[in-house]
Amino acid sequence: MTERRYDPTTDEWVTFATHRQNRTYKPADFCPLCPTLPGEEPTEVPYRSFEVVTFDNLFPSFSPDPPAPEIEASELYPVAPTNGRCEVVVYSDDHSATFSDLDSDRVRMIVDVWADRTSILGSDPKISYVMPFENKGETVGTTLSHPHGQIYGYPDVPPRPLRELDAAQAHHRRTGRCVHCEVVAAELADGRRVVAVGGGWVAWVPFWARFPYEVHIAPETHRDSLPDLDDAERDGLAATLATVTRTYDRLWDFSLPYVMAFHQKPCDGDPRWDALGHVHVELSPPHRAADRLKYLAGSELAGGAFVTDVAPELAAAQLRAARPRR
Amino acid sequence: MTERRYDPTTDEWVTFATHRQNRTYKPADFCPLCPTLPGEEPTEVPYRSFEVVTFDNLFPSFSPDPPAPEIEASELYPVAPTNGRCEVVVYSDDHSATFSDLDSDRVRMIVDVWADRTSILGSDPKISYVMPFENKGETVGTTLSHPHGQIYGYPDVPPRPLRELDAAQAHHRRTGRCVHCEVVAAELADGRRVVAVGGGWVAWVPFWARFPYEVHIAPETHRDSLPDLDDAERDGLAATLATVTRTYDRLWDFSLPYVMAFHQKPCDGDPRWDALGHVHVELSPPHRAADRLKYLAGSELAGGAFVTDVAPELAAAQLRAARPRR
Repeated sequence: MTERRYDPTTDEWVTFATHRQNRTYKPADFCPLCPTLPGEEPTEVPYRSFEVVTFDNLFPSFSPDPPAPEIEASELYPVAPTNGRCEVVVYSDDHSATFSDLDSDRVRMIVDVWADRTSILGSDPKISYVMPFENKGETVGTTLSHPHGQIYGYPDVPPRPLRELDAAQAHHRRTGRCVHCEVVAAELADGRRVVAVGGGWVAWVPFWARFPYEVHIAPETHRDSLPDLDDAERDGLAATLATVTRTYDRLWDFSLPYVMAFHQKPCDGDPRWDALGHVHVELSPPHRAADRLKYLAGSELAGGAFVTDVAPELAAAQLRAARPRR
Repeated sequence: MTERRYDPTTDEWVTFATHRQNRTYKPADFCPLCPTLPGEEPTEVPYRSFEVVTFDNLFPSFSPDPPAPEIEASELYPVAPTNGRCEVVVYSDDHSATFSDLDSDRVRMIVDVWADRTSILGSDPKISYVMPFENKGETVGTTLSHPHGQIYGYPDVPPRPLRELDAAQAHHRRTGRCVHCEVVAAELADGRRVVAVGGGWVAWVPFWARFPYEVHIAPETHRDSLPDLDDAERDGLAATLATVTRTYDRLWDFSLPYVMAFHQKPCDGDPRWDALGHVHVELSPPHRAADRLKYLAGSELAGGAFVTDVAPELAAAQLRAARPRR
């Protein structure tokens, strides 16, 4: 069963993809994202070696030609097919590498892949929003350890980016300015929460960090989305991503799990998003200390109200101290 | 540092309570929620035995007389004190019990405590919303295994209930009806997702379940909040909660972790919530199978877009099959 169901009590859609219940789960002896070696079982990558590959997820939540919903719709409970796209981006043929191990050329190549796939998926009229992301580490549920990320092409603007866009629109109406431009300028002027700056990009711990070691990365100059970045800006993004992920691994001397995701302008052509989607990356590590996790429980899950245990200024100072010297 | 900070990019507040970083964490030899025994170290409960006790959380996120925020506010970044209340509700003096082990009188007593504390905290003009909840199990981050729940008195209506109220308001304007009343009637009429019904209450897997074995419990007759429930309705709620939590434990023959939370009408006196807050309980177990968890990662965390692996009709059938016979 693969279908979308509407929740009239929150005005949100939930996607059901029950075939995903049988998706590959921490395989012990075989990695489907490794190169296919001569004479051995084929993986999902039909090459003996590769730099970066991207392909459709074998267990997609959204797909270009989904079946009709099985459950009947009603006025109270609308349903919809799971139009969209789910892609895998394998970062390297080195099974044991992580994003922070990649050299600068490779990271830059991945930035290009994210941008290109944003353009290509975004040109599908059934896709309204493209979100590249990476779930890193078993702690955040990753079932394949080979270094990879994902790109979801959603049939609508998902709830969290939509909330951001709505807030940006309200801010723009009130002040005439992009709220993300204002935040970036405020963080650069203040400096206490900045983790890295350079190449036209800023990495900082948000004033309102929901996860103690959350880091956002955004361009100083307003850019709507990944495809809008020029060569120099892509280089700057790649360098900043490399710095932040390496800093994370040095914070407590282990490979830090995180969820990393891009927010950018929707691709649904709606003119109300013009000048509101300031592309940025959000990295959310689940750790609140080397040996302790931040859980999303009652207040966060049922209330949506985050309580954070670490001051953002302290987290930023710890991250600055852990930053690798060039 | 204890203060609230505003996120202008999502129009939400985040609470910082850095003293909580040092809160009691899985103590091995001493339980602060057990009775205080003669000649032994005092716990937080100064009684040799007890039924249900409630007291202020020693490590509160919100409190009646919070300090002023340390960080300076700006037009872009408003800050606020952490007014509110955080209480602990200990369900039993039996350290190894769980909610599902409690007898019906005890569960009914806990319902009364939730209702009474909702009235008492709700009468504080600095509290806008009262949410009783329970985080059960290490899987959802519980650091004390003694059976207990919590009650948060928030200074505003938290994001998730606010989103529900906004959706209920839109539905009411469009149809003249309470969306929760409509959902309860639809589930009773359909039956495929119903887990238990009786005493004026329905327990069902939502049509749009975000967690595979999510169960909601609501009264058939519209009631705004816990204090509005009469004696018979409280008995019915207690019996339904007992049935659902026992069913959870029988589903896979282990004590199932969950987050359980009440949503009810805000207590801020705002007339726009009149007839919109239909009290209900949401139980969200993190398991998607006996040996696998549903993680909130890229799509859920950064996108707010849930992808669920189990059909709600199948989950409900499994739960009905596991339901204890009276």
